[in-house]
Amino acid sequence: MKNREEGIKNLEIMRHSCEHVLTQVMLKLYPGLKMAMGPAVEDGFYFDFDCKDKISEEDFPKIEKEMKKIIGQDLPIKKQEISVKEARKLFEGNSYKQEWLDEIEKRGKKVIIYRTGEDFVDLCSGPHVESTGKIGPFKLLSVAGAYWHGDEKNKMLTRIYGACFPTQKELDQYLWQIEEAKKRDHRVLGQKLELFMFDDEVGQGLPLWLPKGAFVRHKIMEFAFNTYLNHGYEPVVSPHIASSNLWQHSGHLDFYADSMYNGFGIDQEEYRLKPMNCPFHLKMYNHRPRSYKELPIRWTEMGTVYRYEKSGVLHGLTRVRGFTQDDAHIICNNAQLHQELVDALKLTLYILRTFGFEKFEMNLSIRDPENKTKFIGNDKGWEEAENALREALESIGYKNFVLDVGGAVFYGPKIDVKVADSLGRKWQISTIQVDFNLPARFKITYVDKDGKAKTPFMIHRALLGSLERFMGVFIEHCAGAFPTWLAPVQVVIIPITERHLKYARKIKVDLKAENIRIELDERTESMQKKIKEAEEQKIPFMLVVGDREEKDQKVTVRQRGEKKLDTVYIKDFIQQVNSTIEKKT
Amino acid sequence: MKNREEGIKNLEIMRHSCEHVLTQVMLKLYPGLKMAMGPAVEDGFYFDFDCKDKISEEDFPKIEKEMKKIIGQDLPIKKQEISVKEARKLFEGNSYKQEWLDEIEKRGKKVIIYRTGEDFVDLCSGPHVESTGKIGPFKLLSVAGAYWHGDEKNKMLTRIYGACFPTQKELDQYLWQIEEAKKRDHRVLGQKLELFMFDDEVGQGLPLWLPKGAFVRHKIMEFAFNTYLNHGYEPVVSPHIASSNLWQHSGHLDFYADSMYNGFGIDQEEYRLKPMNCPFHLKMYNHRPRSYKELPIRWTEMGTVYRYEKSGVLHGLTRVRGFTQDDAHIICNNAQLHQELVDALKLTLYILRTFGFEKFEMNLSIRDPENKTKFIGNDKGWEEAENALREALESIGYKNFVLDVGGAVFYGPKIDVKVADSLGRKWQISTIQVDFNLPARFKITYVDKDGKAKTPFMIHRALLGSLERFMGVFIEHCAGAFPTWLAPVQVVIIPITERHLKYARKIKVDLKAENIRIELDERTESMQKKIKEAEEQKIPFMLVVGDREEKDQKVTVRQRGEKKLDTVYIKDFIQQVNSTIEKKT
Repeated sequence: MKNREEGIKNLEIMRHSCEHVLTQVMLKLYPGLKMAMGPAVEDGFYFDFDCKDKISEEDFPKIEKEMKKIIGQDLPIKKQEISVKEARKLFEGNSYKQEWLDEIEKRGKKVIIYRTGEDFVDLCSGPHVESTGKIGPFKLLSVAGAYWHGDEKNKMLTRIYGACFPTQKELDQYLWQIEEAKKRDHRVLGQKLELFMFDDEVGQGLPLWLPKGAFVRHKIMEFAFNTYLNHGYEPVVSPHIASSNLWQHSGHLDFYADSMYNGFGIDQEEYRLKPMNCPFHLKMYNHRPRSYKELPIRWTEMGTVYRYEKSGVLHGLTRVRGFTQDDAHIICNNAQLHQELVDALKLTLYILRTFGFEKFEMNLSIRDPENKTKFIGNDKGWEEAENALREALESIGYKNFVLDVGGAVFYGPKIDVKVADSLGRKWQISTIQVDFNLPARFKITYVDKDGKAKTPFMIHRALLGSLERFMGVFIEHCAGAFPTWLAPVQVVIIPITERHLKYARKIKVDLKAENIRIELDERTESMQKKIKEAEEQKIPFMLVVGDREEKDQKVTVRQRGEKKLDTVYIKDFIQQVNSTIEKKT
Repeated sequence: MKNREEGIKNLEIMRHSCEHVLTQVMLKLYPGLKMAMGPAVEDGFYFDFDCKDKISEEDFPKIEKEMKKIIGQDLPIKKQEISVKEARKLFEGNSYKQEWLDEIEKRGKKVIIYRTGEDFVDLCSGPHVESTGKIGPFKLLSVAGAYWHGDEKNKMLTRIYGACFPTQKELDQYLWQIEEAKKRDHRVLGQKLELFMFDDEVGQGLPLWLPKGAFVRHKIMEFAFNTYLNHGYEPVVSPHIASSNLWQHSGHLDFYADSMYNGFGIDQEEYRLKPMNCPFHLKMYNHRPRSYKELPIRWTEMGTVYRYEKSGVLHGLTRVRGFTQDDAHIICNNAQLHQELVDALKLTLYILRTFGFEKFEMNLSIRDPENKTKFIGNDKGWEEAENALREALESIGYKNFVLDVGGAVFYGPKIDVKVADSLGRKWQISTIQVDFNLPARFKITYVDKDGKAKTPFMIHRALLGSLERFMGVFIEHCAGAFPTWLAPVQVVIIPITERHLKYARKIKVDLKAENIRIELDERTESMQKKIKEAEEQKIPFMLVVGDREEKDQKVTVRQRGEKKLDTVYIKDFIQQVNSTIEKKT
């Protein structure tokens, strides 16, 4: 663990230093520019500044050239401690830096500056690399507007983003990834493939699923739901609102209120949209007395929950204000806990692998022992729950998990599963949480063999997590080329001329009878145009039919991503499609 | 139509007169009793009164005997007009009647009283039958408490309910129906079969679906959804909340606000729970320009909507505050409207018949031409839309529909389909509405063949209506004995003794492999008790296995509702179950 953290730290230091070099160059090239701030971020850095000149990406080569010069000179980067007074003078005329100094003065902290060579100095707590020569290959990426302190009431500054890596190979890989990611952006594909949309009058962060997207979402949900039923889960359904009394009882209003929407009155009571399904399931458990013979109980619900997100962080499907979880709660006794966690982890991997994800990162989030007030429950309970999750991870062979201290939910610790997509980017998808607190709060019990009432454990788990987020990730993972079992249109028939329409219609009927989702492109467009558009729509199979095909009662198959064309009998094609569907590829 | 209305009117008159006889008897039997009010209601009447004595159903025989006497005497019932002053004196000491008189006086109306024979007089605007002999067979049903004017701030009165019919046969049928309905009450069965529950902390009118109920609900939804997809519908999904801007735009805040919940703020905007899905679908239609080639568009959504109902009218699943509609919107041009309506009606009948409903009543609800302000849109549009629905009804052979003037939705006229359940009770289930208003409000158009933008029609339709309400009705219709395709548990295996457990487990594995939903009753209870409980749980098939069955590798089948037992090979039983599932019986 330590080496990994150190590696990340060193990368951050180098990127921050690279940002200083950028700042130095910008000050030189654009006299009068006022530097505001510039941190290292994941994969790179950014620099915010106030400048009369309009900077665009066309200016990057010139800026990069100057940056390379400074890196080539291997200038020393040196830390220095000075008085506030000295600092005020040093950054005279720069209101942003003066504001930082106000803050430093208020907190009674020391003023630290870093100098690069002779010409450049910045107010910065560092650390930095020893000299500019230690900065690896870099690239400026984009220009954007950014409000000072992220507050839209403040002035709009200019922001330049850059990337920096230890080696050229890593940088190249990253740049390719960015380019590829742009093409795969689920917001762009969502529009192009007509999967979903947003609408200002409906509200921000509330996706509307268009027919094709709704269909894919339905198929994914159906697959997950049926898988759970086959694994001993039972369905339950709960409403989207509940009285605030429930959320008070569950602790959500004390520990989760920031993520909840405001209340609204019905008759004399206040109600809230549900941010989670758990309290409802606890209520259902308490519907009647339960016996040890009934455990483990596994209840699943495709539950749509609403959680507040600031409008600034909303992003396509991956960060929304309302989403559907493939949620489930497992209620079990102490002796069953380990196996249930192991089974839930295995089921997670099965589900994720079905969608073509092969690389996983396991994250164990535990309570921050220094900050216990953010969490409910006692030490013993937390220890038991944390150990149970740790042991489950180990027993399925994931000893190298990432530990996140303080990342637990208010009611218990959790495992989060991240997947690496086809571009190597990591996305958090699944969550498995052990909870010994809500069962106690809701006084759920079972009568054990010895006739005594005992409090069971509760496992919260969502394997696709948020359907919306999962779809966003999955669209980028497969670049919108959905596997055949999910594709809204699986096959498109393209007749070479109008003369072949009759034969094409016959094929359509044949394939429809096999429950294959088929479209016939009857438009009076050229075959080439139709093929191009079918490719853009990423339809798994195109069937081109002309004289030869009609004569032999065959079809010529263009499979997505394959160069080779096959001319086969219809029944053989049907077999090919069905086998692709069955294999879920 | 006229005869039907007259028939209802005459029944009401007779029932009202029967209530007068009840009042007369009560005054005689319970001196000091103050009569408050007593109207005719559907199937009968009730009488509210203020009385120191506690009346119970045990007193009914005595009361009924006196009532029969009065009816036997064939006393004349006579109307009389008197002055307010005379009336005040006549009903001196009865504050309820005095309050009625205040009201009559305030409105400047005439005071009408009805006298039965010599001994009884009541303040009543009538009309009544000529003499008590014209009153048909009757029965007192129940005693309940009721607040004066239905307001819980007022005094609690006693209410006696009664039924009255023209013939003994009709009364008997009705009484049998009541008894049977009590047994079938979905609220009782919901508890007994563990289908659903309500919880005060969650909130009134918000059902929580327990595993078995959620499963049945899921199967019904799945059946409807897949049927729609097979009939050329495409799925869409929309959120449960939207900004009030949307509801203003759609007209809901002007015409439907009473059924909507209060708003709640997100950032600077006000949001509302959705009472309908339509505005979202219109937004999706407007996602991009549409061509005439795309029409008709049929979009379906299993959309959960929230509508305000007063707490006093909430009733199990049939009157709730949140429910899921099998909603769809069909957007089509003028020329397609008739066929789309006919197809929607046919689909409705197909869906309802699948659930065993065979008798339907078609209701056409049109705008009230006297009260146009409750509706949006122009006369021509209303006429066209109303005619389209009328013609669709006629063309599928329903010329005898019921006309409900003023029953239209604010945006258009509708057909409501009522079903008669197995007790002959009528329930409104499906709705098909023609809307020319929302398309105009949302400016949805299509480019027609001539290149011009035109406004299409929109059909709103929900065939099961509310899933919750439908389930409530269906549970009562089938008395909780779900057909095999819906039954949460299709087969239960009952081993005669513990010795037969091994063989029973083998059968369980065999049937599970066939996707039959099977349970093995492994408890150490007697076979008789297990059979009784399986009967109570209304499980379609019981398999009893003992020595003989094990030896022959057979099972003894007890099919629900059948007296005859069959001993058959397992494979033949599997065939029997599968054929029952396929036939949906």
